[in-house]
Amino acid sequence: MNDSLLPVTETTDDSGSCHTHGYLGDKKKYLARVKRIEGQARGIHRMVDEEQYCIDILTQIAALTSALEGLALGLLDDHLRHCVVDAAKSGGEEGEAKLAEASAAIARLVRS
Amino acid sequence: MNDSLLPVTETTDDSGSCHTHGYLGDKKKYLARVKRIEGQARGIHRMVDEEQYCIDILTQIAALTSALEGLALGLLDDHLRHCVVDAAKSGGEEGEAKLAEASAAIARLVRS
Amino acid sequence: MNDSLLPVTETTDDSGSCHTHGYLGDKKKYLARVKRIEGQARGIHRMVDEEQYCIDILTQIAALTSALEGLALGLLDDHLRHCVVDAAKSGGEEGEAKLAEASAAIARLVRS
Amino acid sequence: MNDSLLPVTETTDDSGSCHTHGYLGDKKKYLARVKRIEGQARGIHRMVDEEQYCIDILTQIAALTSALEGLALGLLDDHLRHCVVDAAKSGGEEGEAKLAEASAAIARLVRS
Repeated sequence: MNDSLLPVTETTDDSGSCHTHGYLGDKKKYLARVKRIEGQARGIHRMVDEEQYCIDILTQIAALTSALEGLALGLLDDHLRHCVVDAAKSGGEEGEAKLAEASAAIARLVRS
Repeated sequence: MNDSLLPVTETTDDSGSCHTHGYLGDKKKYLARVKRIEGQARGIHRMVDEEQYCIDILTQIAALTSALEGLALGLLDDHLRHCVVDAAKSGGEEGEAKLAEASAAIARLVRS
Repeated sequence: MNDSLLPVTETTDDSGSCHTHGYLGDKKKYLARVKRIEGQARGIHRMVDEEQYCIDILTQIAALTSALEGLALGLLDDHLRHCVVDAAKSGGEEGEAKLAEASAAIARLVRS
Repeated sequence: MNDSLLPVTETTDDSGSCHTHGYLGDKKKYLARVKRIEGQARGIHRMVDEEQYCIDILTQIAALTSALEGLALGLLDDHLRHCVVDAAKSGGEEGEAKLAEASAAIARLVRS
């Protein structure tokens, strides 16, 4: 199982400040979604391998992009409701850091 | 190997009109890209399974979305250079149909 | 001065719950940005009127879209820091409503 | 009338190679669209000036972004049908240059 994740340049070891990730309440639902996304990526791989028609591949790429947006929006909503609000309630630098981090993540999504 | 592709509602059996897909000249390069994309999707699956930090998962989703955009733009460029231009040269309904199909694909990418 | 705003279908008279909008601290900065955005829109109008080259118009459209994204991300960041966090601190339905509203706004930005 | 267009760094004096821009057949329709877009930008300016609610401003920004996407997709479709296809038919460097230019414009739209 070789993943192709981007190297994480900054350590974001925030586990100390956000013990229970918001999305865990729905972990089963999220796992089903990422499994489907993995299947979509596998399907696109197969389409290229089988030399299918360009436009049909582009349609599947647009569908996968939409699925990824939906996943990201779900995770972000949970993150705002849990980590960010909790940190903001306790206030201070921690709250500020979580808000800045969430805004940066939103910017990456809007611009990607 | 269970793919999760969208059902294709309209048959786009264009193989008759566009025998050699533009991207085939670079098939090796495209296969390497889709393999990496599949690895990125697998990595995101693993991150959710291991309950990693939301923001780190969002970063990887943005990276995968960018990789998909790059793949789509490459396929589209090849498609315009080959299928669309060839069909437009021969003119008539075929040329018109290919142009309309390409514009619809571009619209899906811009809006997804 | 005829604006072309979308009709607002739901009244969002939230002024009662969020008296001082987050962005007001930087109102001057935001006014400068929206003035520039208005100028960009006017410039695109003029380019079409003067029958300039398509590709140059598309370049200016992409620049305006990026400027709008930047404006939206700035407003959203201020909104999260003020209205959403304040409402979440006081908790209850109000906090929940503000979070849902912010998530819906983020979704519209990511998908537009 | 002070426009805020980006400085065009590369001269794209393509008028010699593409005398009649594709969109001119529909100039009236395009002028109506850009007028409406200008009105939307003016409306957003006014909303900030009147210190309206953040979320309502974000909604109008998303609507303007969608309108710009629609305009860009229309211009691009016309450009492909006229300039690009004509240049590709005459072939050679000119055809190649037009295709590369169109693909770059598509990439800016997809990524903006």
